[in-house]
Amino acid sequence: MRMPDGMRRDSLRRIAVLAASLTFILSAVFTVGPALSQQPPGPQQAAAANRTKLLTSPGVFGVFAMYKISPDYYRLSAAERRGAAAEVTATIARHAERVIVDAYLTRGLSGASDYFLRVHSDDLSAAQAFLVDFRATRIGQHSVVTENLFGVTKALNYITKQKSPELNAALGASPYAGDPPRYAIVIPTKKSAEWWNLSTEQRLKEMETHTQPTLAYLPLVKRKLYHASGLADADFVTYFETNDLTAFNELIIALLSVPENKYNLRLGNPTTVGTIRSVEDVVKALSVTP
Amino acid sequence: MRMPDGMRRDSLRRIAVLAASLTFILSAVFTVGPALSQQPPGPQQAAAANRTKLLTSPGVFGVFAMYKISPDYYRLSAAERRGAAAEVTATIARHAERVIVDAYLTRGLSGASDYFLRVHSDDLSAAQAFLVDFRATRIGQHSVVTENLFGVTKALNYITKQKSPELNAALGASPYAGDPPRYAIVIPTKKSAEWWNLSTEQRLKEMETHTQPTLAYLPLVKRKLYHASGLADADFVTYFETNDLTAFNELIIALLSVPENKYNLRLGNPTTVGTIRSVEDVVKALSVTP
Amino acid sequence: MRMPDGMRRDSLRRIAVLAASLTFILSAVFTVGPALSQQPPGPQQAAAANRTKLLTSPGVFGVFAMYKISPDYYRLSAAERRGAAAEVTATIARHAERVIVDAYLTRGLSGASDYFLRVHSDDLSAAQAFLVDFRATRIGQHSVVTENLFGVTKALNYITKQKSPELNAALGASPYAGDPPRYAIVIPTKKSAEWWNLSTEQRLKEMETHTQPTLAYLPLVKRKLYHASGLADADFVTYFETNDLTAFNELIIALLSVPENKYNLRLGNPTTVGTIRSVEDVVKALSVTP
Amino acid sequence: MRMPDGMRRDSLRRIAVLAASLTFILSAVFTVGPALSQQPPGPQQAAAANRTKLLTSPGVFGVFAMYKISPDYYRLSAAERRGAAAEVTATIARHAERVIVDAYLTRGLSGASDYFLRVHSDDLSAAQAFLVDFRATRIGQHSVVTENLFGVTKALNYITKQKSPELNAALGASPYAGDPPRYAIVIPTKKSAEWWNLSTEQRLKEMETHTQPTLAYLPLVKRKLYHASGLADADFVTYFETNDLTAFNELIIALLSVPENKYNLRLGNPTTVGTIRSVEDVVKALSVTP
Amino acid sequence: MRMPDGMRRDSLRRIAVLAASLTFILSAVFTVGPALSQQPPGPQQAAAANRTKLLTSPGVFGVFAMYKISPDYYRLSAAERRGAAAEVTATIARHAERVIVDAYLTRGLSGASDYFLRVHSDDLSAAQAFLVDFRATRIGQHSVVTENLFGVTKALNYITKQKSPELNAALGASPYAGDPPRYAIVIPTKKSAEWWNLSTEQRLKEMETHTQPTLAYLPLVKRKLYHASGLADADFVTYFETNDLTAFNELIIALLSVPENKYNLRLGNPTTVGTIRSVEDVVKALSVTP
Repeated sequence: MRMPDGMRRDSLRRIAVLAASLTFILSAVFTVGPALSQQPPGPQQAAAANRTKLLTSPGVFGVFAMYKISPDYYRLSAAERRGAAAEVTATIARHAERVIVDAYLTRGLSGASDYFLRVHSDDLSAAQAFLVDFRATRIGQHSVVTENLFGVTKALNYITKQKSPELNAALGASPYAGDPPRYAIVIPTKKSAEWWNLSTEQRLKEMETHTQPTLAYLPLVKRKLYHASGLADADFVTYFETNDLTAFNELIIALLSVPENKYNLRLGNPTTVGTIRSVEDVVKALSVTP
Repeated sequence: MRMPDGMRRDSLRRIAVLAASLTFILSAVFTVGPALSQQPPGPQQAAAANRTKLLTSPGVFGVFAMYKISPDYYRLSAAERRGAAAEVTATIARHAERVIVDAYLTRGLSGASDYFLRVHSDDLSAAQAFLVDFRATRIGQHSVVTENLFGVTKALNYITKQKSPELNAALGASPYAGDPPRYAIVIPTKKSAEWWNLSTEQRLKEMETHTQPTLAYLPLVKRKLYHASGLADADFVTYFETNDLTAFNELIIALLSVPENKYNLRLGNPTTVGTIRSVEDVVKALSVTP
Repeated sequence: MRMPDGMRRDSLRRIAVLAASLTFILSAVFTVGPALSQQPPGPQQAAAANRTKLLTSPGVFGVFAMYKISPDYYRLSAAERRGAAAEVTATIARHAERVIVDAYLTRGLSGASDYFLRVHSDDLSAAQAFLVDFRATRIGQHSVVTENLFGVTKALNYITKQKSPELNAALGASPYAGDPPRYAIVIPTKKSAEWWNLSTEQRLKEMETHTQPTLAYLPLVKRKLYHASGLADADFVTYFETNDLTAFNELIIALLSVPENKYNLRLGNPTTVGTIRSVEDVVKALSVTP
Repeated sequence: MRMPDGMRRDSLRRIAVLAASLTFILSAVFTVGPALSQQPPGPQQAAAANRTKLLTSPGVFGVFAMYKISPDYYRLSAAERRGAAAEVTATIARHAERVIVDAYLTRGLSGASDYFLRVHSDDLSAAQAFLVDFRATRIGQHSVVTENLFGVTKALNYITKQKSPELNAALGASPYAGDPPRYAIVIPTKKSAEWWNLSTEQRLKEMETHTQPTLAYLPLVKRKLYHASGLADADFVTYFETNDLTAFNELIIALLSVPENKYNLRLGNPTTVGTIRSVEDVVKALSVTP
Repeated sequence: MRMPDGMRRDSLRRIAVLAASLTFILSAVFTVGPALSQQPPGPQQAAAANRTKLLTSPGVFGVFAMYKISPDYYRLSAAERRGAAAEVTATIARHAERVIVDAYLTRGLSGASDYFLRVHSDDLSAAQAFLVDFRATRIGQHSVVTENLFGVTKALNYITKQKSPELNAALGASPYAGDPPRYAIVIPTKKSAEWWNLSTEQRLKEMETHTQPTLAYLPLVKRKLYHASGLADADFVTYFETNDLTAFNELIIALLSVPENKYNLRLGNPTTVGTIRSVEDVVKALSVTP
């Protein structure tokens, strides 16, 4: 028996979507979760490999898209809101080959946003394509952007094996050893013209003084840097993960207490703290009513 | 006689909710009230003990969540608004084992907000869980976050028995002696890079000069400090309680008049003044119409 | 004949409300009007005496509550808006024993607000209670707070009979002699840490230089000072009344031209200019359509 | 025949309104238009004389009221929006004896506003009365104030015949000679405490250096100054008219390039550029849909 | 046969609109696209010639109009939103003789806007006329302006053949050689009073130091400058196009690292990054839902 063309096309499309969704769900089980807090689940998973690669390579774009739910979201029926998470999940599935998406719940912790997404891709326009689609979902339509920063990853440029061998070795010697991090913190930084006009040697010296006190915190706080000059109103976006916020507070005080801090025009503003969650959890937490 | 399963489950749930509510109401009678302005009601009350512990221990998180009621709240029927307080009370009851909640009415005193909640927990994610649930209540849905700061409590780090024995003794010698405080004030502070780059000895000296003029006000103004570097766009959140706002104004002038003030990049902004109320009172004051 | 209890309670309540309203209306005729621009109408009026006392004593709180009408106010029917003034008047009547209320129309003069209320009380929580009730009226529900500052009055602390006898005498020698003021101006001020770290003598000297050029304007501009450090994001709120805005502009230029101005971190921001009106006039001006 | 009283009153009112409108329309034909870009049409027109007087005398208040149309304006029917211009015209007619009104379209040129009105009166409360009535019109109700500044005109105080005779003569020697200006620019300025603490002689010297490079632009750019210290969060509002924006840009660069610019705390913010239009044109441009 | 007059007028108008649209569509095929990233398609196209001329001549105005879609846009029916792109296209067609329009999608890349238009004309009021009409379209009505800057193009004024012959030659020697740019970046700049008070020679020297490190990036990043002093709250608007955002980030770091950067009061704020699209693509991306 032969199906009419229209039906066949339809069926094929449904199968394709189904396959994509399944791929996504499987990959999500293994890989969608906090970026830094997870060991690669094994070489058999292409998606996981892709995730690991995107989270460790230079030249990858990281977009931090922060949102507040607009008050009228709660005027949707409970059923409509209940479907919001699946819709987001399906949207992520459609983009899974080109972007990876992490989600964070900030409501109750940071006033400027309710949640944020961190989207990685080696093609910025792929990240944009996902975020445009996300805004067309039910919860996306009812979300207001409060901050949208992106940066690009690069190889270390101060504390390298060549320029600062001892510190470089120390950085590698203290892997994260704490409980799985439950918290992520995003801090944008902007440096003064005075900083950028220092010689490379002077900046290296300042960065060594900056790095020294962080060594003690390496087992408790993970850190990932994005370069943003010209791409956002910041020079850097630093992303942290930790399960020990008191240690994190002390790390930040240590970083405030070195001369390099005198060159910061912006540090935070906003400082964003969120709990690391699956995308589904974040959407549900913001959708349910008692 | 045996109830059908569905009914039984339902009944059990109702009993559980009832029990939780009762526990909450009882504990509220004795313990929900202004944090510092209250003596522990006795060892027989586990909740009260928990409250005392959370309000005096280091390593506890204090979240200051400030809200403005959105104009459409008044478009709900009077009956709907009348039910808002009970809904918040029940939400607090469900979280009573892990967080304590204080409420403050700021409408008419501070323009940036209508009210704020102060939530303590030794687990920040428990505080977040409560605040997420609170936003799903009727009044929470119609509230807009205007500021959301949190910090962590620590043991004294400058004016200690070791480093500054005389001042430390003086701090302990003047307990609060005024009328029960009716007012609370929240002032976030951010220090300059110059402050953090002072040596520990220099900062101790500045903090001694800072502390000296506050001694005279100890019987009239209570004070509690939260450390916020890296957790919010502030280094500290200071919470005050007083019944004498003229004395408080003079205390602040005394604090403005020492050199340490030259290192403040942020001091207030917002300065938030509220009256100390029960949660129920706050919700009612913002819900009723004549 | 005896009325049933319910009816009696009702009647008594009505009589009480009527009496309060009458008292208010009478006192309003004589005393509700621009605070500084009015002579006390005579000792026979308790309310007037109260007004005079609140406007001249130290230790009185003055709240400046500034509002913008939200656009949907005009969507109420003309009849509903027409009733708004009476509702506010009645609310003021209910609080007349504890607070005095002045009103100012700023629409067309200052962009940040449409009107503001100045509320005096020797009990800040009484001022808050009124402002909370005011927001529950029709126009209050459709008003958005744009600024809410308060301060406390104090005795002169620089240009006193003891410290600066000549200037003190000069201040007393030039009473206001202009036409009844039609305009009020509110200017919040915040001083730098450098100011507060000057010695008392240095600050006295600066305040003498600040006061000297104001003497010439005393007959044309009235001035009242509220202390706000720790109570708002300002150290002072200065309230002026004048009928001659060109003279006022020149007074301000004179005040800008002394060294004390170098210590101002905030001066205005917002500067608020309004016309002095009865509460009823203000509400009507914002409620009627052609 | 005698009309019943009610009808007579009605008829008289209609005739009065008609007469006022006619007066207005006639005066508008001759005088409502860009303030500086127009020669007085002759002594026979009282309104025109009044306009000339208000635009050239000291002691006149100039209010700059800037607005953005709120998005719901387009939800009115096309017919309702079509009537908006006539309603504004009638409102201006009712106030024509006491205020003159100029209108400017800023949509597409300056992001902060869609249009602004410049209202002159020698009585500030008359200007306010008009602006309050304007906000009650259909387009006024759907307009949000984005800036509302006013200042007062004064005689020249630096470059006078006495203090700086040569420059004063030069200022008078180069009348505007360009095409009728199509553009107006409004730039608020705020000076630092350092500026106001200079001696009068120092400020005169700086103002001479400031004025020198402007001479070349006098034939291409008109300029009018309003003094605003204490009346707004600015010390001056400068209003320009030109038909040559490149020349205007070069004039501003010349003004930026003198030492007096080092004393500017605020310069623009917002800088507002609009096209000079009749009130009717402005309202229509913002009301029609294709 | 003769058509009745009314019908004839109607038909003629329809033909005219059709012709205009066709002209537009044809010209769009060849010329509407990223301004700098396109070679002129040949002398046979008047529109293309006009485009080339507007994009390379001095004295041309460039308006950057940035918008955010308001949340209620999604409440229009899908059909209504589907028609939005054609409506914008037709509006552009009506203005095609006087303005050229480029469009950029910023959603997902820059938080302050969803898209922006760049409009060129040698008559600023023509650019305004288009932008006023655009706002009356369906998507325009649901767009909120977030930034609206304009500047005017001028001939090079520092690195000229006369003043700096070697650098001038170097600028001409390295044409863009990368892939067609997919990204555009807009960065407004404001210089300090200190900058403008430097002598011309000093500024030339600083600009030479500024230009030197940009030479290496000429093959990867295009750049176009608009002068904005007095026209916007910026002195310059710089527009970049690139396909290599990492190279662009490094170019900006090079520009931050020269002394001229010390004179920047504003640099970005907002920094706006968008993908270069056809107008139709931009409108569709913001209109469709899955």
